[in-house]
Amino acid sequence: MHALKVTRQGDFPEWYQTIVREADMAESSPTRGCMIIKPWGMGIWERFQQEMDRRIRETGHENYYFPLLIPLSFFAKEAEHVEGFAKEMAVVTHHRLKAMDGTLKPDPEAELTEPLIIRPTSETIIGDAFSRWIKSYRDLPLKLNQWANVMRWEMRTRLFLRTAEFLWQEGHTAHVDESDAMEETMLALEIYRSVVEDVMGIPVIVGEKPENERFPGADRTYSIEAMMQDGKALQAGTSHYLGTHFAEAQNIRYQDKDGNLTLAHTTSWGTSTRLIGGLIMVHGDDDGLRTPPAMAPKQIVIVPMLRNKPEDAELKDYCSALAAELNKQSALGAPVRASVDTKDAKPSDKRWDWVRRGAPIICEIGPRDAANGQVTFINRNALREGEKIKSTSLPRADFISQAGAILETIQKDLFAEARKRLHDNIVDGLTTWDDLARYYGTADDEREFKGWARVHWSKPTGAALDEVGDRLKTLKLTIRNAPLDQPKSFGPCIFTGKPGVEEILIARAY
Amino acid sequence: MHALKVTRQGDFPEWYQTIVREADMAESSPTRGCMIIKPWGMGIWERFQQEMDRRIRETGHENYYFPLLIPLSFFAKEAEHVEGFAKEMAVVTHHRLKAMDGTLKPDPEAELTEPLIIRPTSETIIGDAFSRWIKSYRDLPLKLNQWANVMRWEMRTRLFLRTAEFLWQEGHTAHVDESDAMEETMLALEIYRSVVEDVMGIPVIVGEKPENERFPGADRTYSIEAMMQDGKALQAGTSHYLGTHFAEAQNIRYQDKDGNLTLAHTTSWGTSTRLIGGLIMVHGDDDGLRTPPAMAPKQIVIVPMLRNKPEDAELKDYCSALAAELNKQSALGAPVRASVDTKDAKPSDKRWDWVRRGAPIICEIGPRDAANGQVTFINRNALREGEKIKSTSLPRADFISQAGAILETIQKDLFAEARKRLHDNIVDGLTTWDDLARYYGTADDEREFKGWARVHWSKPTGAALDEVGDRLKTLKLTIRNAPLDQPKSFGPCIFTGKPGVEEILIARAY
Repeated sequence: MHALKVTRQGDFPEWYQTIVREADMAESSPTRGCMIIKPWGMGIWERFQQEMDRRIRETGHENYYFPLLIPLSFFAKEAEHVEGFAKEMAVVTHHRLKAMDGTLKPDPEAELTEPLIIRPTSETIIGDAFSRWIKSYRDLPLKLNQWANVMRWEMRTRLFLRTAEFLWQEGHTAHVDESDAMEETMLALEIYRSVVEDVMGIPVIVGEKPENERFPGADRTYSIEAMMQDGKALQAGTSHYLGTHFAEAQNIRYQDKDGNLTLAHTTSWGTSTRLIGGLIMVHGDDDGLRTPPAMAPKQIVIVPMLRNKPEDAELKDYCSALAAELNKQSALGAPVRASVDTKDAKPSDKRWDWVRRGAPIICEIGPRDAANGQVTFINRNALREGEKIKSTSLPRADFISQAGAILETIQKDLFAEARKRLHDNIVDGLTTWDDLARYYGTADDEREFKGWARVHWSKPTGAALDEVGDRLKTLKLTIRNAPLDQPKSFGPCIFTGKPGVEEILIARAY
Repeated sequence: MHALKVTRQGDFPEWYQTIVREADMAESSPTRGCMIIKPWGMGIWERFQQEMDRRIRETGHENYYFPLLIPLSFFAKEAEHVEGFAKEMAVVTHHRLKAMDGTLKPDPEAELTEPLIIRPTSETIIGDAFSRWIKSYRDLPLKLNQWANVMRWEMRTRLFLRTAEFLWQEGHTAHVDESDAMEETMLALEIYRSVVEDVMGIPVIVGEKPENERFPGADRTYSIEAMMQDGKALQAGTSHYLGTHFAEAQNIRYQDKDGNLTLAHTTSWGTSTRLIGGLIMVHGDDDGLRTPPAMAPKQIVIVPMLRNKPEDAELKDYCSALAAELNKQSALGAPVRASVDTKDAKPSDKRWDWVRRGAPIICEIGPRDAANGQVTFINRNALREGEKIKSTSLPRADFISQAGAILETIQKDLFAEARKRLHDNIVDGLTTWDDLARYYGTADDEREFKGWARVHWSKPTGAALDEVGDRLKTLKLTIRNAPLDQPKSFGPCIFTGKPGVEEILIARAY
């Protein structure tokens, strides 16, 4: 018997929704497509924010905050950009309600002369500010970041993975030339790789998106791609070199050293609450989430086995003293985060709550532990031995001194497990379209674990690429990216049989 | 000559706008009434967030995130509440744009069946969640907080002080009864007092708002009120006991210990980016902002006097080694935040930039300082001696060891200066309406510094209170609050001559 009613094998999408709900991470709200993020989900996001924010600052970016609402006309300036977003924009048209015929309605007299759009992303309004702020080469590079909510009206939503409103970080920078802007694009990508791999414990493949998967208005889009436990890919972060498209559309020009007025080159890059969905689908098991220690709001949770008896007071003292000692230790370069769960609930219910949330270490302390100066604990990443829960007892002092090292091992083991899964499930050697079609089978087999395919192609563009995209769609496949690590020589193109020029990854995706 | 072109005495509102602009804090955006928050303003807000968030967590609240958009029907449930906000709501009516006659317009086929409101505050959608989450007394108290952007359509806006979109923190809690909810209301108020006084260095008067100034839907509203340098009051934070109004409107009921279904009592409380406006108007001088060290993103800024000569490298090394040593010190219970300004600009321009932003300590290090192992620095809170800038030199080791203490003294001095101003400028002894009218003069004198009046009243309610409010309005005055600290006996009511029952503060206000 597992802690969740649904297994990954049994019904992966339902398993995912069950964790989100039962691990106190998020729930659907009465506002269509929008979620309520609950404490464990929010705590994980806040950990992500801290780690990401620190790296973004250390590399010379400063935080700003730009308006939520963007005048409609701003979007009209960059044709590809608006084309990409117009179909999913939430539009504000009125600024007042009025009671009419007994019901509240938008007041016709308070209609805006120009509608405002809830930002789906902020290139347009930030580009406008760039055009005012940037005068000379001395103002460059201009490197900023903002933490914000954005909105893209989605028809089919799924908690964290695809919601109308989501939280994210968006970096926006301007540079003197392509070389400096490309360096920034790759720097942002490396920050993403580092947070996602080293902190979230999610291995990724770093690469460039094909032309048809670029951000609307970008010259080049790079991504990090992660493999979920159902074999699908999740785009875990993107970084865009925007060339001079937005600079032209918004007149971002600077006087160079020779006095010439020159177009700036811009970049943008983003990561979002979507990553929490990825965390679940990479590290979850049939008992719930296994939160990597670096991401866990609480790394060690102590559950006192209270029995509503006078001895409870002593047991509570033992537990809080233990938590206090643990909090003086450090793990993964920061103080350990330990706390006692004193909620008014049955100890076994509390234990299972923390198993489902995936606190990395769960201590269950009974009167006998307290009397003997012991600590009995569970490693959440290796919860069971066969069907049985595996718990370990250590003398209190040993547990305290080893706690940091145990957390670091859990972090490493979760990453290693996921990395092995990623590499074991990328198939090589498919060389023709028929190979590919046979491998992935029909679209009906979508739920079967197939992993990704690493194939060679001739890198078609324009209509020829669209045709490739359409063919892949029949198998519900997409090109994920062309990894930065490329081989020295290539076989024939899997789509056309022509000489290959690049290696790409193909997968079903979220 | 001061660093700003406008003085407080000369034109206070213009002085305020000048600091906001020249201290790199914020600027107006192309979206009507919305601002762009720039790095120094954002850094101050982030410091505020850290200090506030820690205290909110330590008192047992957890962070959540609720949707930006709230269905219109949710507001209709609580009559006073919607009455209070309907006139300033941004309304989303469409979810798609479409090109029509060559221009992009809201697509008529994508009109929402029910309009969505950008949250002006979240009582309604959080109350709805409470009604689902709260079943039994065991689920209470439920104490949550969220950091979010909110929107209230304002006709006359002013950066930070009154903007259509602003950032804030909103606490929402539910309790078994009035006594528990009132304890929470006062706890939140005390958190606010502590952050605003102890961290922002802004002295406040804590008290209860009169009936006509309550939050729409509240039984009781408490506030902390701060005095600006033009004598006006700024409401710096509010905490509301909502009674069972929202519980009734949204069916928030729990089973008590005896099995009866009982209405919960709720509270809400908030503080916002408005406080940054208060920080400027309390601590600014004619040279710019003086940022209290506990709020300063950078507490010590080191400006190397570079001259584009080979010796520059050595000077830079001296400065970065100094910053590194300073960052190992601590002040106000946290590591010192020191950094070197290496921007490509004239050293004197950089110095004035930091004076205007109000970095608490500004070091200017020339080759002679480096050669002699000295540090020359300015205390921003005591910038001048007469007209001249006052700078001090200390041996490097002494400066490093004293830096923390100097910062703590600056923090204390800024608070003491503001507290003296507050207490010196509350007038006692006005006992009749004529006294009050004579003291404040006509509304045309609004810019003259008058401070606040502490008077007694008979605490009228309903229509009688409205009449008092109207009379005060003719002098542009409002009742700020009835301080929690009350005298033992009262003189006659300043409005009616009847026996007084309470002491209140009267002021012009933002």
